[in-house]
Amino acid sequence: MNTEAPETTPEELDAVLRRAADAAPLYAALPAAERARALRAVADALDGAVDELVPVAMAEAHYPEARCRSELGRTTFQLRLFADVLEEGEYLEAMIDPADPDWGTPRPDVRRLLVPLGPVVVFGASNFPFAFSTAGGDSASALAAGCPVVVKAHPGHPELARRTADLVIAALADSEAPEGVFALVSGFEAGRRAVTHPLTRAVGFTGSIPGGRALYDLAVSRPEPIPFYGELGSVNPVFVTRAAMGARGEGILEGYAGSATMGSGQFCTKPGVVFVPEGAKLDALVDDLAARAAAPLLNDRVAEGFARGLDALAAHPATEVLVSGEETGQGRSPSLLRTDLDSLLEHSEDLLAECFGPATLVVTYPDERRLLEVGGVLRGQLTVTVHGEEDDPVAPALLALGASVAGRVVWNGWPTGVAVTHAMTHGGPYPATTAPSHTSVGSTAIRRFLRPVTYQSVPQPLLPPELRDGNPLAVPRRVNGGLPSE
Amino acid sequence: MNTEAPETTPEELDAVLRRAADAAPLYAALPAAERARALRAVADALDGAVDELVPVAMAEAHYPEARCRSELGRTTFQLRLFADVLEEGEYLEAMIDPADPDWGTPRPDVRRLLVPLGPVVVFGASNFPFAFSTAGGDSASALAAGCPVVVKAHPGHPELARRTADLVIAALADSEAPEGVFALVSGFEAGRRAVTHPLTRAVGFTGSIPGGRALYDLAVSRPEPIPFYGELGSVNPVFVTRAAMGARGEGILEGYAGSATMGSGQFCTKPGVVFVPEGAKLDALVDDLAARAAAPLLNDRVAEGFARGLDALAAHPATEVLVSGEETGQGRSPSLLRTDLDSLLEHSEDLLAECFGPATLVVTYPDERRLLEVGGVLRGQLTVTVHGEEDDPVAPALLALGASVAGRVVWNGWPTGVAVTHAMTHGGPYPATTAPSHTSVGSTAIRRFLRPVTYQSVPQPLLPPELRDGNPLAVPRRVNGGLPSE
Repeated sequence: MNTEAPETTPEELDAVLRRAADAAPLYAALPAAERARALRAVADALDGAVDELVPVAMAEAHYPEARCRSELGRTTFQLRLFADVLEEGEYLEAMIDPADPDWGTPRPDVRRLLVPLGPVVVFGASNFPFAFSTAGGDSASALAAGCPVVVKAHPGHPELARRTADLVIAALADSEAPEGVFALVSGFEAGRRAVTHPLTRAVGFTGSIPGGRALYDLAVSRPEPIPFYGELGSVNPVFVTRAAMGARGEGILEGYAGSATMGSGQFCTKPGVVFVPEGAKLDALVDDLAARAAAPLLNDRVAEGFARGLDALAAHPATEVLVSGEETGQGRSPSLLRTDLDSLLEHSEDLLAECFGPATLVVTYPDERRLLEVGGVLRGQLTVTVHGEEDDPVAPALLALGASVAGRVVWNGWPTGVAVTHAMTHGGPYPATTAPSHTSVGSTAIRRFLRPVTYQSVPQPLLPPELRDGNPLAVPRRVNGGLPSE
Repeated sequence: MNTEAPETTPEELDAVLRRAADAAPLYAALPAAERARALRAVADALDGAVDELVPVAMAEAHYPEARCRSELGRTTFQLRLFADVLEEGEYLEAMIDPADPDWGTPRPDVRRLLVPLGPVVVFGASNFPFAFSTAGGDSASALAAGCPVVVKAHPGHPELARRTADLVIAALADSEAPEGVFALVSGFEAGRRAVTHPLTRAVGFTGSIPGGRALYDLAVSRPEPIPFYGELGSVNPVFVTRAAMGARGEGILEGYAGSATMGSGQFCTKPGVVFVPEGAKLDALVDDLAARAAAPLLNDRVAEGFARGLDALAAHPATEVLVSGEETGQGRSPSLLRTDLDSLLEHSEDLLAECFGPATLVVTYPDERRLLEVGGVLRGQLTVTVHGEEDDPVAPALLALGASVAGRVVWNGWPTGVAVTHAMTHGGPYPATTAPSHTSVGSTAIRRFLRPVTYQSVPQPLLPPELRDGNPLAVPRRVNGGLPSE
């Protein structure tokens, strides 16, 4: 099944991007309601093909059926959420400041809205063959924004990418989206060329730090640099206060084991390190992880990278192996390591490196006030989690530490499972992402592919309808800086 | 008067950034209303020192008194506008999505708001010693966002930078802002080091394409890249349709001459190229520009760069010199060159290079439909201007061309004079800026220095007050994706 797709040639890639660039103004000019209809048609097509797509995903990504079905459900939910966002219209950030001779500085009539950037190249992720790949969040938000999308298929699921793309292309064509608004390309070199192609206007990427950084470097060293939205890596620290461990330690560690091994630990939001008080009983956690069956990893490259990272961690003089996961014919079983707070602070670069797969590190701390020192060695994170009691004296400082380094702060829960909702942030300072002001999950992910344009003193009939007096499209608008209203 | 400031040493710079980083969490924690008060105190201090500051600006930037006074007025207006933005609170983009078991994907309680990035380095611009320098738009928006600011003084106005910084620092101290929240550094190497310093979290820059690109390259090649908001260069094309030229050509060309020579042509928004129909009478324009007196340029570096650019343009086989500006003891008088549309399309790279100073290019076109071909050779622009009649058949396409390459589209007006208002965009695709999704003028400029954080399942007393039930701070919030309300 894992048939390698043929590499897209430079000539083919150029033709794909030319078609995307030709489609860009036509697609941007489609009324938002029609783009919403097109996104729903894509969602319907994918849902209708669930029985065809899920077996392909299972075979290529080595995930169980339930996981594949729920991930596809999340993907089509996401497409429909962006359709809702388009119909609601606030994403346009329309603003009208009428001319005002008393404003304090000269003020003609100025009216602003967001417009699409143009062709976007999306790199599919290995670990979410649906939700962060061909028709995943980057594609959905770019298409919603009005940008053509060229997906670079992940080599780990080429057949799923092809079948998904075929369905997307057919659904868009049925919705009268212009030809060329969506395409799939394959191959390492084609991906690099797509990032540097002069017609590409932005890039969305989910993957490893080295891979993402290499492509980011290409995007920013172009003669005309373009935005590169990369979601790279995170160790997603979990802090368990002494009070929380005392009150419900067993349940917390059980939850931790579940979150850390979900999808064989191949989530960007896997909790990779958990801080517990010295003396905390870890026997149940050790037994729990040791009893878990081996599960296959995504592909050989992931398996090799994981083995290298785990070996380095296990060989580090500051760590002790509590559970030594095994590689069997069925895949990898989970590993658990331990260190102490002082060692972590001293060797943070080694011990806080992301180890993508089923391995986690327990860090024991003597005094919970000293947990705040971790803020000094943590790099940017997607998430920070705190398990505490409401009256824990250290809780406010730990939450503040979380907000200072991460895009999401979780209380008494787990970072895996990113809710697809308006207020979600799946982002954070580098290396969590290459663009800390943005998110790749949630309705505000659409912003990444838009830019503002201001119309100054443009007469009514020549304005975009979204900005005309009388608001014929009933989009929410801020007038004179007030709150948006229709 | 033009006393070069001593170069900030690496040790001094490090100390400045450490103080800024120490101040960052304290300053971020100040209630928005107190930050607003601090910004107003800065504005009051600068307004109160107008009679001290204006002579320094006149001496260092070689601008007339009226220009300096109005630029200072614009600067303090801008500081007060950001104070208003803080009090209004929508800039926080607060969102609340309560837990919802029927949401379609798992949805715990998630609440989002924007938080400051941390220490920001701002590079003062040569041509706006007040409005885009020490206490200019980048500093005002970063301080409003809650970020400490380290300004790299422009060598063209070191004394004004020092005096302005002293006033800012004193006013912030009086407002009980934490020590270290604002500082001034000097010197080329100090500027480079500030961009690569590990504690710097973002950079704001206004200046030339080569200077800005060099610093951008440093920012994006750091081990941990940071956002670089550079406003670099633009030729700000002006299209005059045949009908507009016929109806009111003389007035248009008079307005053009005024806009193009404002501030000796040293505005980023100077219209550098104007498209007029073949046969348009240019005599009045030629006489107007030839009669204008020489005015001094900002400094020797600008004067040398301008002379080089103008010489290259004048020596180009495709151009003809209509007015040959002179260099006198008083400065430079304006130059005017001409070419035709075919030559422009063929030699666009040479003929559409920004020539910073009092020189502009007239391009004659045969058929106004052919103006749309210019879209194929224009790089990203701050502005595109169209002079037309409302029923001009080509007007909609020219406005669309403008929106496709520029951040602002001006109708029957001039791009110089950027209104400080909510709906303004002073930005555009590269090389107009290095961050097309943002603006450096207007109230949304604050976004550049903020990033989202989502709180998941955090109990009421541990939430930031902006996100608590009951909305104790009365900030506008979107609940369940609805429109913001208090």
